[in-house]
Amino acid sequence: MDRQAPIGIFDSGLGGLTVTRAIHDLLPHEQLVYLGDTARVPYGTRSPQTIIRYARSCARHLQRRGIKLLVVACNTVSAVALDMLRVELDIPVLGVIEPGARAAVSASQRGRIGVIATAGTVLSGAYPRAVAGCDSRSEVFAVPAPLLVPLAEEGWVDGQVPELVIDRYLTALAEQHVDAIVLGCTHYPLFRPLIDGRARVLCGGATKVVDSAEASAHELRDLLQDRGLAASESPGMRGELAMFVTDMPGRFGEVASRFLGRPVEGLRVEQIDL
Amino acid sequence: MDRQAPIGIFDSGLGGLTVTRAIHDLLPHEQLVYLGDTARVPYGTRSPQTIIRYARSCARHLQRRGIKLLVVACNTVSAVALDMLRVELDIPVLGVIEPGARAAVSASQRGRIGVIATAGTVLSGAYPRAVAGCDSRSEVFAVPAPLLVPLAEEGWVDGQVPELVIDRYLTALAEQHVDAIVLGCTHYPLFRPLIDGRARVLCGGATKVVDSAEASAHELRDLLQDRGLAASESPGMRGELAMFVTDMPGRFGEVASRFLGRPVEGLRVEQIDL
Repeated sequence: MDRQAPIGIFDSGLGGLTVTRAIHDLLPHEQLVYLGDTARVPYGTRSPQTIIRYARSCARHLQRRGIKLLVVACNTVSAVALDMLRVELDIPVLGVIEPGARAAVSASQRGRIGVIATAGTVLSGAYPRAVAGCDSRSEVFAVPAPLLVPLAEEGWVDGQVPELVIDRYLTALAEQHVDAIVLGCTHYPLFRPLIDGRARVLCGGATKVVDSAEASAHELRDLLQDRGLAASESPGMRGELAMFVTDMPGRFGEVASRFLGRPVEGLRVEQIDL
Repeated sequence: MDRQAPIGIFDSGLGGLTVTRAIHDLLPHEQLVYLGDTARVPYGTRSPQTIIRYARSCARHLQRRGIKLLVVACNTVSAVALDMLRVELDIPVLGVIEPGARAAVSASQRGRIGVIATAGTVLSGAYPRAVAGCDSRSEVFAVPAPLLVPLAEEGWVDGQVPELVIDRYLTALAEQHVDAIVLGCTHYPLFRPLIDGRARVLCGGATKVVDSAEASAHELRDLLQDRGLAASESPGMRGELAMFVTDMPGRFGEVASRFLGRPVEGLRVEQIDL
């Protein structure tokens, strides 16, 4: 495999751009190809059969673009379709749940780990499974936090409404005396300052907030090095990001820029059919 | 056309069940066939081309089930695809926007009409067009109220969070001195008590709230009578509701029951591929 080939990043929509941002910040010389299935977003409310079918078509599309590795930058797909993708693809596949779970086990002192995620991710039981896989003594308390997705997409990320919504979700975790909280949905990093602050107030000053996106970027770096797939660095060379989406809704640029943390204007953005 | 044939009702998801409820309450002897495109919901964030493609496949499916009339119980589809459906189908097609607009013109004293709807419906300009079509002197002020959709789906329909969210949207309408407010999204009737109360406080005690779902049911009754399509009533005969969905996500029964206003358990519910 060509180590200069791009890394494929796949999400059901635009939320995976927070993962893309974390990857680009850590590995600025890697070429990135992002596919957001914006015509069929959100996956979180769909059945596992449907999610697997959609994930397969997206992964195959990225593979035809010659990617060296696939990052599934979507908790729902990571929870439901990762095993299938690992079996069917002949390149390494990295999800966001295992890195998030491992980072939470490291961060937690008492082994009481809270997770906020979409209803689909919570129902899948993927975080408890992933935590049990690296530390059998840790306990996981997962709470669905669905309202944070539309609030993030609307850019309503501070003030009384998101704070009340976050408080409702974190209160359920505080009752379980968690000391680490995983942001188990790609949209949630937008609320990082608010969640950090409210978690300290509600769950105690020592509570650690773990971002699955950042944890995944770090595991990606290790994986590329282990497999000899890291792009060679040359001074002044910066990796580029190409974006493919299955639909281009109104306010696309505004919402995408919010998740990516910089303007998408100037990037290659193309609408494709799947 | 057989007047005993069912009425088809189509929505991108489950929100159209509020329209179904209004129709069943007014016309309890009509047979109803509901199609919710739950595999591809929401349409509101999709491009017009995609919405037209999806609407066409849904309408054709219902037509193959022998419906005598199609109700497009979705503001987004009514805004974008109604003309296409009326051209392509050989049965009457009723949207929800025109009835809502006509009811608002009747309800408003000063001709200052507020609309809350999804971003897609607001951007389409469908309500101003529909109002202008029946009263050229009325002015329309449309405000996107996207957060109410997930709040309705979560059942978070009273308390401080929905009140703060509603206040933000209604304040924008109060500044325009509206005296009628159209609920321009099928999800919003779940907030009817809260919106009624807050509209009186923020926009004045004489403000009328107009529900597009109810207005559409009344126009449907008139249309069936005008076209000789009303089912004959026989004592003790009640119309049945059959539901078809393109995906059956978790919590389907709970969410569907919330919109329909009664349990969906016991109804015929079937998952289909489109």
